[in-house]
Amino acid sequence: MSTKRITGPEIEKLIQLLAKVPGLGPRSARRAALHMIKKKNQLMAPLAAALSEAAEKVTVCSVCGNADTVDPCSICTDPRRDGATLIVVEDVADLWALERAGAMNAKYHVLGGTLSPLDGVGPDDLNIRSLVDRVGAEGTSELILAVNATVEGQTTAHYITDQLGDTGVRVTRLAHGVPVGGELDYLDEGTLSAALRSRTSF
Amino acid sequence: MSTKRITGPEIEKLIQLLAKVPGLGPRSARRAALHMIKKKNQLMAPLAAALSEAAEKVTVCSVCGNADTVDPCSICTDPRRDGATLIVVEDVADLWALERAGAMNAKYHVLGGTLSPLDGVGPDDLNIRSLVDRVGAEGTSELILAVNATVEGQTTAHYITDQLGDTGVRVTRLAHGVPVGGELDYLDEGTLSAALRSRTSF
Repeated sequence: MSTKRITGPEIEKLIQLLAKVPGLGPRSARRAALHMIKKKNQLMAPLAAALSEAAEKVTVCSVCGNADTVDPCSICTDPRRDGATLIVVEDVADLWALERAGAMNAKYHVLGGTLSPLDGVGPDDLNIRSLVDRVGAEGTSELILAVNATVEGQTTAHYITDQLGDTGVRVTRLAHGVPVGGELDYLDEGTLSAALRSRTSF
Repeated sequence: MSTKRITGPEIEKLIQLLAKVPGLGPRSARRAALHMIKKKNQLMAPLAAALSEAAEKVTVCSVCGNADTVDPCSICTDPRRDGATLIVVEDVADLWALERAGAMNAKYHVLGGTLSPLDGVGPDDLNIRSLVDRVGAEGTSELILAVNATVEGQTTAHYITDQLGDTGVRVTRLAHGVPVGGELDYLDEGTLSAALRSRTSF
C-alpha cells in the first residue's frame, strides 16, 4: 500500500467515512465515492443535503421509540391507526419491516434491544417500563410481541408478559412456521416441528 | 407495500438517495439510514460534511484526468514522480487501483472510457488527443497501456499506438497471465494460453 497522495484529503476522508456505512467496505466505498464524483450534481450534493437535513431533524419518538423527524412520530399521531393494538419490536428496523408488510394498522413500541444479562442489558436498559405504562394509560387490548425468534427475544417476551400479568391485556406472539416461498428441504428442524405442531386445516 | 407514513419525509428522501449509491440497494439503504440515525454524531453529520466539502471541491485534473481537489492533481505536481513514464488507464478507478498496488512511481493519463463505435464513443470523446500532445510536450519515454483486457480496451490501445506512430515513445502493455493466488482450474483458455506463451524461466 502506497502512502503517496493520489487524490485530495477531502476525497480520502469521504472514502473513510463511506467505508463505515453498513453494506459498504473499503473497496466499495472507493467505488461509491468515484461514482458520486461523476454524479456530483445528481447524487453527491443532494445526498450531502439530505444527510445534513436528516442529521439535524431526526429524533426518537418519546412515545414509541420510532425514528422520525417529529415527536411524537407520524405513526403515534396518525388518527387512522388502531391504538388498541400495540406491536412490540426490538428495533426500529423491525418496525419498518412490519410496516412494509402492511398487514396491521396498529401502533408500535420499540424496546431498543433484548434482555441479555451476559452483555449487561437489563430491564432498565430497554423501554419496558414505558411499555407497561402505555398499556395502562392507553387502554391497550392486544399486545403483539413481534420480537425475534432468538433466545434473547423469547426471554424478553417472557419478561414482558410477567410485567403485564395483572393488566388484563391479551398478549400474542408471531406465528412460527414455514416462510412463504420457503422450501422445506432448507428449513431447520425447529421450524419444521413448529410448522407441524401449528398446522391448520386446508 | 403500505403508503402510510412510517417516518419523516426527510428520512425517506435520504433512503431514496442512499439506494442510488453503488453497492447499496433499497433494502441496504434502509439499513444504512437506520445505522446512521443511531450514529448521528459519529457518522451521519461527519459524512454529510465530507460529502458537501467533496462536492464543492472535487475537480478533474486538466492534465491527466484524475479526480482530486486541486488542479493539476496531487500526482501531476508530485516532484518525486517519474514523469518520463505515463500509465494510460480507462478510468480514475483503474488509476487508484494501480496506485494501491504501488508498483510504479509514474504519472498517469485517464482516457475516460474506451473506443466503442456501437455506443457512439469515438476518439474525440476520449482524452486521446491530449495524451498525444502530452507525450510530445513532456518528452515521455515509455507509455504503459494499462487498459482493460477487453475487445474495446485492446481496440483503444491499438488506436493510441497508431496515433503515436512517429513520436519514438516506447509503448508497452500489461502482461497477461495467471493472477497471483489464482488457481489454474478456474481460469479461462485465453488466460492459460497467454500464460503459456509468455512463460518465463524459473
